[in-house]
Amino acid sequence: MAVKAPTISFLPSSRQTPAPVGRTILEAAREAGVWIDARCSGKGECGKCRIRVVEGDAGVSEGKESQFISPGDRALGYRLACMARVVGDATILVPGEDVLTREAAKKVFSGRSRVLNPAVKSYTVDLTEAGKSPSAYLERLTGLLSGRQGLTKGLSADLAVLQHLADALREGNDRVTLVVWMDREVIDVRPGSGEPCLGLALDVGTTTVALYVCDLGKGSVISSGSVINPQVLFGSDVMSRISYSSAHPGEGVRRMQRELVDGVNTLIMQMAANDGFRASRIMDMTVVGNTVMHHIFLGISPDRLGLWPFTPSVEGSVDVKARDLGIAINPSAYVHVLPVEAGFVGADNVAVLISEQPYERDETSLIIDLGTNGEVVLGNRARMLSCSCATGPALEGAHISSGVRATKGAIEKVRLDPATGEVDYAVVGTEGWATGHRPGELRPIGICGSGIIDVVAHLFKAGLIGEDGAFTQRHHSPRLRKGASGVQEFVVAWRDETAMGTDIVLTQKDIRQIQLAKAALHAGCTIAMDRLGITAIERMVIAGAFGMHLDKENALTIGLFPWCDPAKISLVGNAAGHGAYLALVNREKREEADRIARRVTHIELALEEGFQKAFLNALSLPHTLPGPGAPKPEGE
Amino acid sequence: MAVKAPTISFLPSSRQTPAPVGRTILEAAREAGVWIDARCSGKGECGKCRIRVVEGDAGVSEGKESQFISPGDRALGYRLACMARVVGDATILVPGEDVLTREAAKKVFSGRSRVLNPAVKSYTVDLTEAGKSPSAYLERLTGLLSGRQGLTKGLSADLAVLQHLADALREGNDRVTLVVWMDREVIDVRPGSGEPCLGLALDVGTTTVALYVCDLGKGSVISSGSVINPQVLFGSDVMSRISYSSAHPGEGVRRMQRELVDGVNTLIMQMAANDGFRASRIMDMTVVGNTVMHHIFLGISPDRLGLWPFTPSVEGSVDVKARDLGIAINPSAYVHVLPVEAGFVGADNVAVLISEQPYERDETSLIIDLGTNGEVVLGNRARMLSCSCATGPALEGAHISSGVRATKGAIEKVRLDPATGEVDYAVVGTEGWATGHRPGELRPIGICGSGIIDVVAHLFKAGLIGEDGAFTQRHHSPRLRKGASGVQEFVVAWRDETAMGTDIVLTQKDIRQIQLAKAALHAGCTIAMDRLGITAIERMVIAGAFGMHLDKENALTIGLFPWCDPAKISLVGNAAGHGAYLALVNREKREEADRIARRVTHIELALEEGFQKAFLNALSLPHTLPGPGAPKPEGE
Repeated sequence: MAVKAPTISFLPSSRQTPAPVGRTILEAAREAGVWIDARCSGKGECGKCRIRVVEGDAGVSEGKESQFISPGDRALGYRLACMARVVGDATILVPGEDVLTREAAKKVFSGRSRVLNPAVKSYTVDLTEAGKSPSAYLERLTGLLSGRQGLTKGLSADLAVLQHLADALREGNDRVTLVVWMDREVIDVRPGSGEPCLGLALDVGTTTVALYVCDLGKGSVISSGSVINPQVLFGSDVMSRISYSSAHPGEGVRRMQRELVDGVNTLIMQMAANDGFRASRIMDMTVVGNTVMHHIFLGISPDRLGLWPFTPSVEGSVDVKARDLGIAINPSAYVHVLPVEAGFVGADNVAVLISEQPYERDETSLIIDLGTNGEVVLGNRARMLSCSCATGPALEGAHISSGVRATKGAIEKVRLDPATGEVDYAVVGTEGWATGHRPGELRPIGICGSGIIDVVAHLFKAGLIGEDGAFTQRHHSPRLRKGASGVQEFVVAWRDETAMGTDIVLTQKDIRQIQLAKAALHAGCTIAMDRLGITAIERMVIAGAFGMHLDKENALTIGLFPWCDPAKISLVGNAAGHGAYLALVNREKREEADRIARRVTHIELALEEGFQKAFLNALSLPHTLPGPGAPKPEGE
Repeated sequence: MAVKAPTISFLPSSRQTPAPVGRTILEAAREAGVWIDARCSGKGECGKCRIRVVEGDAGVSEGKESQFISPGDRALGYRLACMARVVGDATILVPGEDVLTREAAKKVFSGRSRVLNPAVKSYTVDLTEAGKSPSAYLERLTGLLSGRQGLTKGLSADLAVLQHLADALREGNDRVTLVVWMDREVIDVRPGSGEPCLGLALDVGTTTVALYVCDLGKGSVISSGSVINPQVLFGSDVMSRISYSSAHPGEGVRRMQRELVDGVNTLIMQMAANDGFRASRIMDMTVVGNTVMHHIFLGISPDRLGLWPFTPSVEGSVDVKARDLGIAINPSAYVHVLPVEAGFVGADNVAVLISEQPYERDETSLIIDLGTNGEVVLGNRARMLSCSCATGPALEGAHISSGVRATKGAIEKVRLDPATGEVDYAVVGTEGWATGHRPGELRPIGICGSGIIDVVAHLFKAGLIGEDGAFTQRHHSPRLRKGASGVQEFVVAWRDETAMGTDIVLTQKDIRQIQLAKAALHAGCTIAMDRLGITAIERMVIAGAFGMHLDKENALTIGLFPWCDPAKISLVGNAAGHGAYLALVNREKREEADRIARRVTHIELALEEGFQKAFLNALSLPHTLPGPGAPKPEGE
């Protein structure tokens, strides 16, 4: 009797494969076309192929894992893909943990904040310089600070400070460093002069979570990393997270919060180990995310955000102790969660705003933050409008056949020779085009948003797909074929060039996903422009991690957003993360954020009369543009 | 081969007995002369005989316990004494949990606060009365409160409030009650009008912990109870607790804190079950205790309090979330720990002061709080002195052969007919003298501090003991005998009259304990009076639970404190608990406490030159008194 082989599903890509019992998860991943980094080729020696079993189970060879996976992570389901074997149906999260080296991290936000005024400051004091009255240690030490600029009289102290004060004084020979939050609460005490305090900026995306650790004394980023938001277990977009919460009242949001916090904590530990700092030195933290991520991070049910009138539970900034959220930094540190605007436009957009400051300009800026939701702000000194476009995760490479995030090994740029029909590509983490390397040297792992946009633009310009996005069948290229499931597809890279040994393709279905995404974004921009009575865009800013790799011309070709002179388009990378960083190193940015969040007028696209029409208009390639110089398809 | 029977030790009395394997703990207790309430006579049906196995183990009959002991308490070692059997050496804590009925509780502090101004206030608001802007629930609801008197603009909110806000609004049909702490933080949200908030006043004594639960809307005490401080495991006085902490750095104080908090939590649950309230309704808490108890309660090592210059870590009042201390009330509630004075004179004495207010009077008061430490304040409007006298736990009945706390069944008053030598006594919880009842009806369980003082005074007046406290051997009474260990003793109640079936006695050793205790107290008072240049006491206040039962004449006879006209001595009961209650129902009392704590001048007796001499002078019965009318022993 033939037994059906178990099905192994991979997240966040949602790819599946049948795999016989006994096969390693790494082998199954390769069959599913999912790239897992395994430098030692499955010998269990490099520890790079960490995956997490989130449903079902996977048998594990004993022994070798223990040096790479902590008992805590093991309990969360972490395994080495090369050691874990198929025993039955299972869902595997490829966490995509990505820790930048210290050198690389320093380059993040290289134009760093010019103002350094963190919420947390350190003061080294000597008990022997204090008078004998009052008699208690705390009051004598804080008395020494009473003359310092800005500090509140009668500082309060966290319980942990009371508990550690006497020991710190003994160890430091009466000399200790007090760490003071917002000039009013002593949150840590250390013997002697103490090491500089660190801060953590956290950008919670629907699909990807980014962390930046800064030296609060210098303002420099000393470590950074990213990881897949483990909430992808509960669906790829914000609506699916809301549904999960609604379907599991109370428990749903708690579970999603727990998953997020566990994922963040695991990454903090990896970054700490990699870059040589102790997580307990992190004494401050800022958090940004869209309204749904913001609510779930705080353990607030997002259910009402899915129902008219889409009311958040809280919109102002929130300060809460790290220990109350379970974040594995210093438990006495405060976590500052930036304010949200309205609807789904959350603290991440506020962070983009304090990073880009369109409200300091007379000219009107169109700022687009490309993520799983596309968040749009249009405005200037006088007025600002925002809306959230349900682009879905396609531009982040999710739910695309060969899609990956804009991470090392991802095809980030593609060009197509209109004469020969041949493809060339560039890969994140390597220099130059594939044709400049030995054949098969670049070993791409998939294609990310910017590469996908390039392919669609070139297919359109070459006439391989029409205005409706459908393959035209007018060309005969070996790269054009019917795929396994009978769907038309275009081969971007052949299997012998790729890391997994499977072709990297773009299917008809993938093109439809891109069309839906770009139509949602384009329509949102159009509605906002109509509201402000604007027909031409003076300045455009594209934010978002994958935006860094975007080819402006190709994006305009497919009509990802309304026409704008490419020279006036800036690509700024993770502006939300940068805003979180700014709020971390300069507390005045927190006040600015609270002020600005309330100044933005929100447009709820789903309730806009013209939205449906604008969306349908924008589905075609390219959307008909009012401005001059709009490119025309070459294939026509 | 004869096997030595296991030794069973009982706390807090420190009594021991050998007991063969298989005997119940209840039987062993009776043999040791330790009273355990077991109404159903050991059938496992009443659940009254709860004890806690703190060292070693005790075999337990399965089944019957589960209805009386929760799984949590079981894990802490709670058992029914009538079911648990000796399997080897063990130490048993008789927790002395004592929950007053609701009716009895109402009489506690019957002259209750005239001012009702709790730190926690409730406001019922209706979302439909709020404007549409701001849009978020929290900001709209707190906006409705912005006009209310005293409330801070821009109230902050506890994380739990953010998490529960949307659900409470749904359940309450847009009508919710916000609970606001100190006019500045929303700490709870409840659907509709909500039940009144409760508050908890906690008095942590070295030997006994007392709890009072109040209705914060009315100021009435709705439940009260007491329990042995489980820290008696680590020694009976504050010095032994400091030693335990020093000997186990870090871990020691954590363990003692855990024991205390567990004991308090267990009692809260019992009080809640008994008096029909939910512990989560307790939204505020005040705590008092001597400096060592204060530190341990907060998890602060008390080590430095045992070393010159006896510096506390913190002296001002402290507010900390209940969840950070593990107290099983509403986790978002704040716990307000009153300020300490100096040395061992702590928040309990500050509470006595705000209850008695000697600083509002021109005449000088001598206030004595009788506990395991005797805390003394001498002063008036102009000046206050305090000191702490190391009386030890003898006056609370601990380390006294038949000693018990002043609880139900304790002999609280004793009289001795000088003609016949016959003894009569009164028992807590019953009316009148034993001679007014049928023989053997009162069934005392032991003798408490006031009864012990009576016995010593009568023995002295009858000439049975001399000025040096030694039995004179001049009398021949059947009640005078050599005890089991060869020590001279006086039988207060014969075994056929008592609850345990063993004699209640006072031994030569017990009398020595009382002499040491009263000498320490008397010397402390003398030193304070010398400092203020006072020779006669205008007003004396005796506080402390057992003080309620004190016979003033007998106390003066043995020289428990300096001479004072008995008409000028007031017995006020647990003034520390009353002060904690006042600070709970009236936040102005908290400010008063902070102010007053800093106005008291502390005398460190151990460093006072004259202390040793004053102590030696005060050892005899009675100490020679300067005042007129000092009683003379009758037996001379």
